[in-house]
Amino acid sequence: MKQELIPLIVGGFGLFMALVIYAMVSKMPAGEGKVREIAQEIHEGAMVFMRREYTLLLIFVAVILVGLYIGFGDWHTPFAFVLGAFCSGVAGYFGMFSATKANVRTTVAANEHGAAKALSVAFYGGSIMGLTVAAMGLLGIGALYLLFGGDPHTVESIHGFGMGGSVVALFSRVGGGIFTKSADVGADLVGKVEAGIPEDDPRNPGVIADNVGDNVGDVAGMGSDIFESYCGSMIACIAIASTMSVGLFSQIAARQQDLMFLPLALASTGLICSVLGIFLVKVFSSKKPDVALRFGTIGATILFIIAAYLTTSALSIQSHVWLCVVMGAVGGMLIGLVTEYYTGGKPVREIAKGGETGSATVMISGLAVGMESVVVPVITLAAIIFGTSLILPAGAGVYGVGIAAVGMLATVGITMAIDAYGPVADNAGGIAEMAGLGAETREITDGLDEVGNTTAAIGKGFAIGAAGLAALAIIAAFIQVISSQVEGFALDIANPQVLMGMFLGGIFPFIVSAMTMRAVGDAAFDMIKEIRRQFKDIPGLMEGTAKPDSKKCVDIATQAALKRMMAPGALAVLAPVVVGFGLGAAALGGMLGGALITCVLLALMMANAGGAWDNAKKYVEKGNLGGKGSSVHKAVVVGDTVGDPFKDTSGPAMNILINVMAIVSLVIAPLLAEMPYGLFS
Amino acid sequence: MKQELIPLIVGGFGLFMALVIYAMVSKMPAGEGKVREIAQEIHEGAMVFMRREYTLLLIFVAVILVGLYIGFGDWHTPFAFVLGAFCSGVAGYFGMFSATKANVRTTVAANEHGAAKALSVAFYGGSIMGLTVAAMGLLGIGALYLLFGGDPHTVESIHGFGMGGSVVALFSRVGGGIFTKSADVGADLVGKVEAGIPEDDPRNPGVIADNVGDNVGDVAGMGSDIFESYCGSMIACIAIASTMSVGLFSQIAARQQDLMFLPLALASTGLICSVLGIFLVKVFSSKKPDVALRFGTIGATILFIIAAYLTTSALSIQSHVWLCVVMGAVGGMLIGLVTEYYTGGKPVREIAKGGETGSATVMISGLAVGMESVVVPVITLAAIIFGTSLILPAGAGVYGVGIAAVGMLATVGITMAIDAYGPVADNAGGIAEMAGLGAETREITDGLDEVGNTTAAIGKGFAIGAAGLAALAIIAAFIQVISSQVEGFALDIANPQVLMGMFLGGIFPFIVSAMTMRAVGDAAFDMIKEIRRQFKDIPGLMEGTAKPDSKKCVDIATQAALKRMMAPGALAVLAPVVVGFGLGAAALGGMLGGALITCVLLALMMANAGGAWDNAKKYVEKGNLGGKGSSVHKAVVVGDTVGDPFKDTSGPAMNILINVMAIVSLVIAPLLAEMPYGLFS
Repeated sequence: MKQELIPLIVGGFGLFMALVIYAMVSKMPAGEGKVREIAQEIHEGAMVFMRREYTLLLIFVAVILVGLYIGFGDWHTPFAFVLGAFCSGVAGYFGMFSATKANVRTTVAANEHGAAKALSVAFYGGSIMGLTVAAMGLLGIGALYLLFGGDPHTVESIHGFGMGGSVVALFSRVGGGIFTKSADVGADLVGKVEAGIPEDDPRNPGVIADNVGDNVGDVAGMGSDIFESYCGSMIACIAIASTMSVGLFSQIAARQQDLMFLPLALASTGLICSVLGIFLVKVFSSKKPDVALRFGTIGATILFIIAAYLTTSALSIQSHVWLCVVMGAVGGMLIGLVTEYYTGGKPVREIAKGGETGSATVMISGLAVGMESVVVPVITLAAIIFGTSLILPAGAGVYGVGIAAVGMLATVGITMAIDAYGPVADNAGGIAEMAGLGAETREITDGLDEVGNTTAAIGKGFAIGAAGLAALAIIAAFIQVISSQVEGFALDIANPQVLMGMFLGGIFPFIVSAMTMRAVGDAAFDMIKEIRRQFKDIPGLMEGTAKPDSKKCVDIATQAALKRMMAPGALAVLAPVVVGFGLGAAALGGMLGGALITCVLLALMMANAGGAWDNAKKYVEKGNLGGKGSSVHKAVVVGDTVGDPFKDTSGPAMNILINVMAIVSLVIAPLLAEMPYGLFS
Repeated sequence: MKQELIPLIVGGFGLFMALVIYAMVSKMPAGEGKVREIAQEIHEGAMVFMRREYTLLLIFVAVILVGLYIGFGDWHTPFAFVLGAFCSGVAGYFGMFSATKANVRTTVAANEHGAAKALSVAFYGGSIMGLTVAAMGLLGIGALYLLFGGDPHTVESIHGFGMGGSVVALFSRVGGGIFTKSADVGADLVGKVEAGIPEDDPRNPGVIADNVGDNVGDVAGMGSDIFESYCGSMIACIAIASTMSVGLFSQIAARQQDLMFLPLALASTGLICSVLGIFLVKVFSSKKPDVALRFGTIGATILFIIAAYLTTSALSIQSHVWLCVVMGAVGGMLIGLVTEYYTGGKPVREIAKGGETGSATVMISGLAVGMESVVVPVITLAAIIFGTSLILPAGAGVYGVGIAAVGMLATVGITMAIDAYGPVADNAGGIAEMAGLGAETREITDGLDEVGNTTAAIGKGFAIGAAGLAALAIIAAFIQVISSQVEGFALDIANPQVLMGMFLGGIFPFIVSAMTMRAVGDAAFDMIKEIRRQFKDIPGLMEGTAKPDSKKCVDIATQAALKRMMAPGALAVLAPVVVGFGLGAAALGGMLGGALITCVLLALMMANAGGAWDNAKKYVEKGNLGGKGSSVHKAVVVGDTVGDPFKDTSGPAMNILINVMAIVSLVIAPLLAEMPYGLFS
């Protein structure tokens, strides 16, 4: 059998497993009466959003397609681009479709069978997303590798797949982020603060939109984010290996083709390990949820590290390359643990304590925590760069960085499953509350949700680390593609072009953060006005005798998300093209460098500050420092409200931003190599 | 006459003018009774802080001195280092001494002679600082140039001067920043919010400390910050010119010595233009204060641009170099104007409007404004880099960047004067309030203070731009010094060492921001406890029959500042040494690049967000959106409190951080050139 068929077979197997689990989930009881009705509203709201988002995306994809065809003059890259967009779209759609089926079944399971069963259902719901992401990535790149991988002239077109996935990710993540937070902030401010009704109260018109938001932001958005990094890291390795000089690759492996194939082989291995990890969670589901989930992830990672050794050996690749895999896998876990500390440990209690002197102190200490939290993750990334350059022959370090990224992301099937489990459990709790199920049911879903918050924080840290490493690998690939065709090309910081590019690159993360924060603020403002209007205009709403117009709120969030995601999206796609062709390849390289550093730092800061504020609020709500309704509580609520767009909109947008900029640069690299000095220089 | 004597003569003239103005100010009436008493307390508090700060600095300087002597084995660099620390110290001490004399004389002038006279006195007070900074810089570097400039083996030791100035600046800026904001936040929170007494009420025990803080932070701290950039840009030009290849410099000038001397010549020209500008302000002092100040700065800049053309011609240097001067001078004004817009225009009203939905919205929109405000200044810096590389021969662009920085900073005598005018006017108002002078007097000082807030914002933007450009020039000099001695040295981003360094460099601005924000938070907390204690324990304090123990509050702020400035200071000085010798010169170069981008971005964001929040509060306090005491006011006060450490502690610390890291790297560059690959690589 040709080894190139393995990714397709494993990818097919992964998709099959996702369908099996979907079949299992959908056979479970979906509740009746009010429960079913609410779940249906959430499901439909999410689907309406996705359909409208994808319609808009279609236009965007079509425009880029034309641009690519004009630029390249053949169908290879445009085809790969469309395939990438399609695979990412399918993964997001199917994953979210399943998540909005699993949520209500988790509620029912908690109500009828207890915690263990509910954990299984919620986790299965997340697993479908995890497996679909991994499988679609592997199938897509596997197919392109089979088509284009053998010929050095067509291998470059695989980059288009990454660009397709990234464009979809950009819109899903940014649009989803704006949707979810405008709904969340709006529903909370009017419902909890002004009307004094509990969270997820069915009388609140914004609650359905809030629950829809968890799905479009935290399931579909997060999935497309990880999909992009996952594919990006593989594509970067293929690009670096394919442009490596003969002298260099022969020090690491017998055949250049093996180095190109290694990322696919590792991802295949990782997918199988993920499926095994999912079984592990099932086996341990009678234990506490966090223990079960931890067994699954750590088990899958250990299995993967062992299997990766066999994989590199089987391809007769130097065992030092395997060490790069290990560095990536361990580094990813480390970043996750640090995130857990900053968003759950001592720093959170300090922020809450700061609430005693008011919300300004909460803000200051939260920002300080966010800023401190960048240290270990960034040192981890630096250490991976240092380590790979130390153990691989000089010049091959960048390949090692790419392989480390693949190593970090190979078990994405299970890490993503655990991540998507969070919003499913959150939704399950929301449905239980809205449908007025008993306190016991609510307690179970609360327990699942709490674990979900921690796993979400870890997942976010992991996603940033992985995105940073993947982007780095793509940037390295970009440099190598240009260098292999332009004599003497180097990104010397002392070169004014590069330096200018670095400064320009630093601007984008700030401007996109500002845009997305404003978008949430404005949309939340519209949401607040509408909810207030409904409370005023709909007679009997507060008494529970009339139903709110939830659809209207979903519509407002949808409109805002679609409208406000255009500008950051266009900026991210166009910036590399304009700078690259206008100011030259060196300026573009510098820009990617500056943007990379700034994106990683801001992403970590915003995600962790936001997570810490969120949990400081939860800490007070558990009865500490005066509990709910105290002045400390008021202070930490302000922190949480600022943290919402930080951690769920602007922060995650940074991952995508740098990856989109990097992959667009890699795609246009062959064209830039023909005119590397720009129009204006 | 030898041309090398010009800087010494002009520097001497500048110092003489500063003394003349000081004599004029000190002859003016200093008030009587309560006015004199309060002024005396502020003056003494400031002097006590300075003396204690300088004592601590002495130890730090001594330690570094020993390190330098061991490293270099001769007295050249250590001597220059001590001279730099001395000159910076003298400028800070004398400037602040004069400012704390001018403040009360401004109050008296406002009380007895009206607005025009008061403006003159306040501005004279600031001018002493401005002229002293310029004169001490010119005298110090001029003397070293005379001693070491002729011999290529000793010219490198001039770098030590910059390092000495930077170390003093680091402590003055960070220590001053912590002092001023802990006093400000503490006094405001207990006085205005809890006790409900007005700002600057003499019953508040923290008010003297607050007024002392304006002097140690905004006069001495700001002065040392600008001193550092001013000297750094000159030193960078000398270093770049002295290591330029023969082929390269001969395309720009006949003699290499002329290129080395040009920054000193330009600074001398600028100092003379500044003196003329100060006269212009005096002439127009009967007009509105902002008009008079604007006439002075713009007039001095235009004069300087013309005079700079004559200077370059006189040295027979290509006129393209003069264009670099113009770019720097115009760029500095542009950055100042953008700062004025973001901290005074539409964005401020939007933030205030956001207060209608609570403090969380104020926070989000303020952060968004801060993030947006980086765009134009950073593009301006990028355009200067691009422009200089376009008009100068390939490879000489970095010299142009250095000269642009000198051009931006040459008229520092007047820009710094206008900047230091702000705190003098602020103090004058505080004294009037505390001494219970009439509403008319207070109105005049309020008018002066308002203009002072705008000039301070502009000054801050200018200081960041200048610091960024100066740091860039120093980094370029560092690269050139190493390249001239190590064959094939280049800071290629694709080199893992450089890349790792870039990531590490990005960490420092975040960690130093976190440290300094925490320091303010903790110190303010101590201050709050002490003020609360005094209100409780001192009988008759609220009734005005007993006096508060202001000394104790000054002491708390002093202690906190001295204790908490050590760690960031040590970090900034040690990081380049550890990374340079440990990981190699390439990693250090990368680190400087990463830190530069991040420092400039964070500095702009924090300064402008802080300024915008401050003015949003002032806008509401003027009676807009409900005015003082409304819920909107409460929301914008939270923004202002978060903005305080942003704009006056952490933000300004960024300027210093990057300059200290850059100049330490330049000083150790000759040693690194002997072992460029580090111990661990």
